[in-house]
Amino acid sequence: MSIQVIKFGGTSVANISRIKNIASIIEERIKSKKNKIVVVVSAMSGVTNKLVEAYKKIKTDTLDPEYDVILSTGEQYSSALISTILNEKRINSRSILGWQIPIVTDSNYSKARIFKICQNFFRDQFSNYDVLVVAGFQGVSNDHRITTLGRGGSDTSAVAIAYALGLKSCEIFTDVEGIFTSDPRIVKDATKIDFITYEEILELASLGSKVLHPRSVELAMKYGIKIHVRSSFKKNIGTMVIKEENKIEKEVVTGITSSENDAKITLKGIPDKPGIAAEIFGILARINVNVDMIVQNITDDGKFASLTFTVPIEDQANAVNELKSSDIKFKNIHADKSICKISIIGVGMKSNVGVAQKMFETLAKKNINIQVISTSEIKISVLIDLPKKKTAITSLHKAYGLKK
Amino acid sequence: MSIQVIKFGGTSVANISRIKNIASIIEERIKSKKNKIVVVVSAMSGVTNKLVEAYKKIKTDTLDPEYDVILSTGEQYSSALISTILNEKRINSRSILGWQIPIVTDSNYSKARIFKICQNFFRDQFSNYDVLVVAGFQGVSNDHRITTLGRGGSDTSAVAIAYALGLKSCEIFTDVEGIFTSDPRIVKDATKIDFITYEEILELASLGSKVLHPRSVELAMKYGIKIHVRSSFKKNIGTMVIKEENKIEKEVVTGITSSENDAKITLKGIPDKPGIAAEIFGILARINVNVDMIVQNITDDGKFASLTFTVPIEDQANAVNELKSSDIKFKNIHADKSICKISIIGVGMKSNVGVAQKMFETLAKKNINIQVISTSEIKISVLIDLPKKKTAITSLHKAYGLKK
Repeated sequence: MSIQVIKFGGTSVANISRIKNIASIIEERIKSKKNKIVVVVSAMSGVTNKLVEAYKKIKTDTLDPEYDVILSTGEQYSSALISTILNEKRINSRSILGWQIPIVTDSNYSKARIFKICQNFFRDQFSNYDVLVVAGFQGVSNDHRITTLGRGGSDTSAVAIAYALGLKSCEIFTDVEGIFTSDPRIVKDATKIDFITYEEILELASLGSKVLHPRSVELAMKYGIKIHVRSSFKKNIGTMVIKEENKIEKEVVTGITSSENDAKITLKGIPDKPGIAAEIFGILARINVNVDMIVQNITDDGKFASLTFTVPIEDQANAVNELKSSDIKFKNIHADKSICKISIIGVGMKSNVGVAQKMFETLAKKNINIQVISTSEIKISVLIDLPKKKTAITSLHKAYGLKK
Repeated sequence: MSIQVIKFGGTSVANISRIKNIASIIEERIKSKKNKIVVVVSAMSGVTNKLVEAYKKIKTDTLDPEYDVILSTGEQYSSALISTILNEKRINSRSILGWQIPIVTDSNYSKARIFKICQNFFRDQFSNYDVLVVAGFQGVSNDHRITTLGRGGSDTSAVAIAYALGLKSCEIFTDVEGIFTSDPRIVKDATKIDFITYEEILELASLGSKVLHPRSVELAMKYGIKIHVRSSFKKNIGTMVIKEENKIEKEVVTGITSSENDAKITLKGIPDKPGIAAEIFGILARINVNVDMIVQNITDDGKFASLTFTVPIEDQANAVNELKSSDIKFKNIHADKSICKISIIGVGMKSNVGVAQKMFETLAKKNINIQVISTSEIKISVLIDLPKKKTAITSLHKAYGLKK
């Protein structure tokens, strides 16, 4: 008996005709070999948003067990509907809910973390069924209440189940063909990446390329589970997310991504004294505003400094107001939403010199001004004017030879 | 600690404003005394129909565990939403699902019967919560799968929980003020019945007056649980459903009801020989057609008989075809959908003579022809022409003094 864990996202199960499509994918696997399949499913696309909306009409705080009871109906419904369709195709299948396995989690409702998944349950059920359609995104707390794992949690369900079953990999079927070197809507030449490391995809995810939920990648990285990201609609092989040591050829730059989720705030004329930055960022931390990129300059006379940093675009107004009404002294404050963060990502960067220089050079040639720079081991990000976004990405894509 | 079990139907929880209305009812009870409340809820009105529709697009057979998984999302959703609203009103409440208690049932999916309800669960939960909002209509089988109790099953959930908690009564809040002597849309003078026996309400239910689900009444009758049927929208006392021996004043006739769900079939010129009726009804039984009222006549010469009976209106065509293609010999067959069954119901009937005679006399005076008659201990039904329905009911209502 060979067990596979495959996950289908919301768009792959959006309606009956799409469910019939995934039923064919499952059917093929059952017929070809003596396979047993765990199918992890999301709610049909749009359903979770509607449930969240209904809840939020009453209450905004989601750290509430009732929120999880409401949201989990989405996957309960889709798993049973999919199993019904599979049964009608004479595929011996049943739906499975989080509490039935159980997938035991902590009691952090709306963002629970998995403690334990019972492996025996699957082995037992496979003596009666060929396909187990597991409602993703849900678990059960120690006091027998339904929990949910946070948005995109079905990816995490799939990886965790693969691990519980002692598997080395799992497949995530989605509405794209894999991970691309850049957004194909911006860069025409963008190509599918065959292999990407966990670290690289985490950098991509944190920048808003949400093909995989970051928690699922962290989990897969921890336990060395390969993730095959592929399309529900095409038969092509997608992108394999793997360990760095398994990636034989380490491209210097694997992908280029951009984010428009940040706003830039600049404070000018701050007295240049020790502890002033800590004071400013302390104020923002107290109102729960995450600061990302930071750059500090000192004026020629050495008395005053200016500070530039980025915050999530939705927190910008709040951050500015809070700083204005604080005790911090500064000459003026300026906020700019018309910016964009461009990042190049690649594990090969670590062992290659000149990667950053090529980035700066490429942008300079196109007359694009870099406002802020930040770097990590496998990523370099720059902040530029929003209207220059497309030119920046396209020229960088070419400069790093990402076109096949 | 005094525990109450109250149930709200789908129309009572149809939207947030109605849920807020029932929240006020619950709030009042919590504040006035040291009460603990079990609130049993249906799905929001229309939801179950939509879920059934989605399932039936794929499969018609509902004897399938997946059907129950799908349908149970309706009450899961409403129970959590209601509990959220109660919590926002500072009523200490949580939602409860069938498997959490558990409400253990058999494995007859889509029409499961309750085996056992764990009383301790409620006692335990009441140490933390004042109100437990139980998702009605659902249970769990011995192999840990979700089951549902059949349409209207939330009434049954409420009565069964009241029994499990050792209570003598429960309340069913609905969109009507109680049980009426007749349908107020037909009889202007129809009045609310203060007390009705289980037997009487079962006769009413079998005739299509679906205020209470018959199974809930059978269960209440078996364990002597009083049911108070009342309106969610008005404060008035409704109708109390009680044991016959507790009904002090036994009206001869408690109520008058009508049904248009039957069609009449008449076979003429059947050879009058033993076993012919058994043969005819055997054919209908084999194609699953329920026969209700029956009358048989023999012609003057004694050689031929005619047979008239009623079947559910949707089975009429099928029944006629099956009889025509059978070996049964008859001169002609005639079907009539323009009929209506009028029934008078009352436990007092048993000890009163002349009840039937008054019915026939009243109808005769109005020139209404009785086509078929059937009787039980507490019911007399007659089949009449559909266009005479209103006149028949109104005059009977007056004749038996049902107007207050």
